[in-house]
Amino acid sequence: MAVDREQRLWDWERTAQPYLLVASLLFLTSYAVRVLVPGLSPGWETWWELVTIVSWGIFVAEYLARLAFSSDRRRFLRTRWLDLIVTVLPLLRPLRIIDMHERMRRRRNHPQLVLEARVMVYTGVTSLLLGFAASLAVYHDERTAPGANIHSFGDSVWWACSTLTTTGYGDATPVTSRGRVVAVALMFVGVALVGAVVGSFSSWLLRRFRQDGET
Amino acid sequence: MAVDREQRLWDWERTAQPYLLVASLLFLTSYAVRVLVPGLSPGWETWWELVTIVSWGIFVAEYLARLAFSSDRRRFLRTRWLDLIVTVLPLLRPLRIIDMHERMRRRRNHPQLVLEARVMVYTGVTSLLLGFAASLAVYHDERTAPGANIHSFGDSVWWACSTLTTTGYGDATPVTSRGRVVAVALMFVGVALVGAVVGSFSSWLLRRFRQDGET
Amino acid sequence: MAVDREQRLWDWERTAQPYLLVASLLFLTSYAVRVLVPGLSPGWETWWELVTIVSWGIFVAEYLARLAFSSDRRRFLRTRWLDLIVTVLPLLRPLRIIDMHERMRRRRNHPQLVLEARVMVYTGVTSLLLGFAASLAVYHDERTAPGANIHSFGDSVWWACSTLTTTGYGDATPVTSRGRVVAVALMFVGVALVGAVVGSFSSWLLRRFRQDGET
Amino acid sequence: MAVDREQRLWDWERTAQPYLLVASLLFLTSYAVRVLVPGLSPGWETWWELVTIVSWGIFVAEYLARLAFSSDRRRFLRTRWLDLIVTVLPLLRPLRIIDMHERMRRRRNHPQLVLEARVMVYTGVTSLLLGFAASLAVYHDERTAPGANIHSFGDSVWWACSTLTTTGYGDATPVTSRGRVVAVALMFVGVALVGAVVGSFSSWLLRRFRQDGET
Repeated sequence: MAVDREQRLWDWERTAQPYLLVASLLFLTSYAVRVLVPGLSPGWETWWELVTIVSWGIFVAEYLARLAFSSDRRRFLRTRWLDLIVTVLPLLRPLRIIDMHERMRRRRNHPQLVLEARVMVYTGVTSLLLGFAASLAVYHDERTAPGANIHSFGDSVWWACSTLTTTGYGDATPVTSRGRVVAVALMFVGVALVGAVVGSFSSWLLRRFRQDGET
Repeated sequence: MAVDREQRLWDWERTAQPYLLVASLLFLTSYAVRVLVPGLSPGWETWWELVTIVSWGIFVAEYLARLAFSSDRRRFLRTRWLDLIVTVLPLLRPLRIIDMHERMRRRRNHPQLVLEARVMVYTGVTSLLLGFAASLAVYHDERTAPGANIHSFGDSVWWACSTLTTTGYGDATPVTSRGRVVAVALMFVGVALVGAVVGSFSSWLLRRFRQDGET
Repeated sequence: MAVDREQRLWDWERTAQPYLLVASLLFLTSYAVRVLVPGLSPGWETWWELVTIVSWGIFVAEYLARLAFSSDRRRFLRTRWLDLIVTVLPLLRPLRIIDMHERMRRRRNHPQLVLEARVMVYTGVTSLLLGFAASLAVYHDERTAPGANIHSFGDSVWWACSTLTTTGYGDATPVTSRGRVVAVALMFVGVALVGAVVGSFSSWLLRRFRQDGET
Repeated sequence: MAVDREQRLWDWERTAQPYLLVASLLFLTSYAVRVLVPGLSPGWETWWELVTIVSWGIFVAEYLARLAFSSDRRRFLRTRWLDLIVTVLPLLRPLRIIDMHERMRRRRNHPQLVLEARVMVYTGVTSLLLGFAASLAVYHDERTAPGANIHSFGDSVWWACSTLTTTGYGDATPVTSRGRVVAVALMFVGVALVGAVVGSFSSWLLRRFRQDGET
C-alpha cells in the first residue's frame, strides 16, 4: 500500500517536472521584467505581478499536494528539505536542478557524461542562474537605497561575478540588509563553485594517472 | 597504574564534557549580551560579567585539574595543546568540537555519517561559531574606535562573512590592532573552510568514480 | 575516403601549426604596440594596424579552409568549438596551447613530463599570456574613460595579477562595460588557475603516498 | 672521479647548511633592524649595513664555490636554479627550506612525519617567513611614498596577511612599483598556500576512506 503510494508519488513528480520548469521560467521572467523594465504601464505592471503570484502559487500548491499525498509525511519533510526552501524562496529554484537530475538519472538509463563534466555543467548552470537571480534581487533592493554604489543592473551583474569567483573587488557592494543577506548566500555559492572546479581538476588528474599506470 | 590513571582521565573527560558545553554556551551568551545589549543596568552588567568570569574559571579549573591528574604531564601538554589555547582564549572553544567528537567516536560505536558529510558539518558549525565570536570581538573593539567603518553588529557580521569566504570586499574592515589580530585568525579559518569544502568535493568525486568502476 | 580526408586534415594542422604560432605572436605584438606606444607616427600606425588585420585574416582564412576541407562539418564545428572562439577573439588564442599540445602528443611519442608538471606549465603560460592580453585590452578601454582608476599600463598589470589570484584588492578596477567583460573572463581564468594549482598539489600528495605504501 | 666530486659536493652542502642558516637569520635580522628601528645612530647604521652585506657576500661566495666545484656546471645551473634565485634575492631564502629538507631526508633515515603534516608545516613556516620578508620590503618602499596607505609596519603585516589568504581587502595596498612587484610575488605564494591546505585536506580525506575500506 505504502509502496503503491510511493510509486504514485514518483509518477506524479515525473509528470509535474516539465510544468514546474515552465512555472520557474515564468517566475524568473516576470520578476526580471518587473525589476529591470522602468516605467511599466499599470496594466503590464499588474499582469506581470499576476504572473509572479500565480507561478509562486503553483509551487506552493504542488508542494502541499505532494506533502498531503505522501505516505510518511515526517520522512517527506526530512528528505525533501530542499523542496521546502525553493518553495518559500523561488529565486533559489535553480538549486533543484541537481536534485532533479539525480532522481531522473536513477530511473531512466541515460548514457552518462563523465562525472566531472556533469559536475562542471551543473555548477556552471546553477552559478549562472543563481548569479542572475542574485543580481536581480540586489539591484531591486539597492537602486533606491541611500549611499548605495550599485546604480544600474550592469553594476549588479559586475558585483555578482566578483562575488561568485571570491575575488571581491569591493567597488560595488550592497549596503542594505536584504542585499547583504543575498550577498552572503552568493559568497557561499562562490566557495562551492571554486570547490567544484578545483575538485574536478584534481579528480581528473588522478584518474589520468591511474589510466596511464594501467596501460 | 598509569593505565588506570589514563582510564580515569578518559572517564573524567566523558563525564565533564556536557558541563563544559553548558559553560561554553554561558560564556558565549554572557559575552554576546555584554557586547550587543546597549544601556545594560549596572545590576545586569555585574551579573553577566560574573557569568563570564565564572564560566572562564570553570575552564581554567578543569584544565588544571586534568593536568594535575595526568600520569605524564609533559605528554599531556604536548598532545592536548588545543585544550590550552581554548582555555586561554575561550572564544576559540568551538575548535574543540572536532577534537571532542573524534575521541568520543573511538570509544562508543556510533553509526557513522559519511566522512565527507561529517567534515562538512564540523566545518560548517565551527565556521558559524567562530564567525559569530569574531563578529562579537571585532564589534566590541571597533564601535568606539576613531575612523572605524564597522558601526553596527550587522556590519561586523557582514565583514565576518566576506572574510570567511576569502571574498574580502574591504568596505568594512577592522582598523584597531586587536580587531586586526582577530581578522587575521578568521582569514586562516576561511582558508581552512575553503579547503574543507574543496577537499570534500574532490574526495567525493573520486569515490564515486571508484564505485562506478567496480559495478 | 573520409579517413583519408581526416588524415589530410591532421597533416594540414601539423604543417600549419608553426605558421599560426608566428601569426599569433605578430597579432599580440601589433596590438601591444598600438596600445602601449604613445604618439605613433601615422605611417607606423597604419603599418601595425595592417599587421593586426593581416594576422587576424590568416586565422579566419585557416579556420574556414579547415571547415571547408572537413569531411563532416557538423562534427568539426562541435569538436573544434575552441577554434571558433579563438578565431573570433584572437586575444584568447593562448587557450589553444592546451588543445594543440594534446593532439601533438598523441601522434608523436615524446618522452613525457610528469602530468602535474605539465598541467602547471600550461596553466602558468596560459595565465601569463591571457593576463597580458587582458591588461592590454583593459588599458586600451580604460585610459580615456571618465572616472577610471587605471591610468597606466602598470596599473593594468597590477589589476590583472590581483584578479588572476582571486585576491581582488579593488584599488584598480575597470569601470567601462568592455573592460568589465574582460575582467569577468579573467576572474574565471583565475578560478581555473587556483584549481590547477590546488588539483596538482593534492594529486601529487596522493601519488607520493601510494608510492611510499608500495615500497 | 665525477662520482667522487659529486660525493664531496654533498658533503660540503651538508657541512655548509648550518652556517648558511645562521647567515640567513643575520641577513633577515639586519634588514629588519634597518627598516624597523627609526633614528638608528650612524655607527649602528653602518654596523647593520655591514652585516647585511657580509651575509649576502657569504651566499654569493658559497654559490660560486659550489658552481666552481661542480663536475658538470650546466647540470648544476639547471637542477639548482632555486639556489641562484635565493642568492640574488636573499629575502626569498625561506623557499630553500623545502629543497634543503628533501635532500637531507634522502641521506639520513629520519623517522618521518605524515606527508600531509610535513607539507602543512613547510607551507606554514615558508608563508610566515616570506610574509615577514614581504612586509619588511613593502614597508621599506611605501612609508615615504606619496599617496601611500601603508604608514606603519602594522599596516604592512595586515596587508601581507590579507594577501597571503587571497582575501585582499584593499584598505592597505602598495602604490610603488617595487612594492607591487613584491605584492604580486606574495599573491602567488598565497595561491600556493591555499593549494597546500586544500590539497592536504583532500588527500587526508581520501586516505581515511581507504583505511576504513580496508579494515
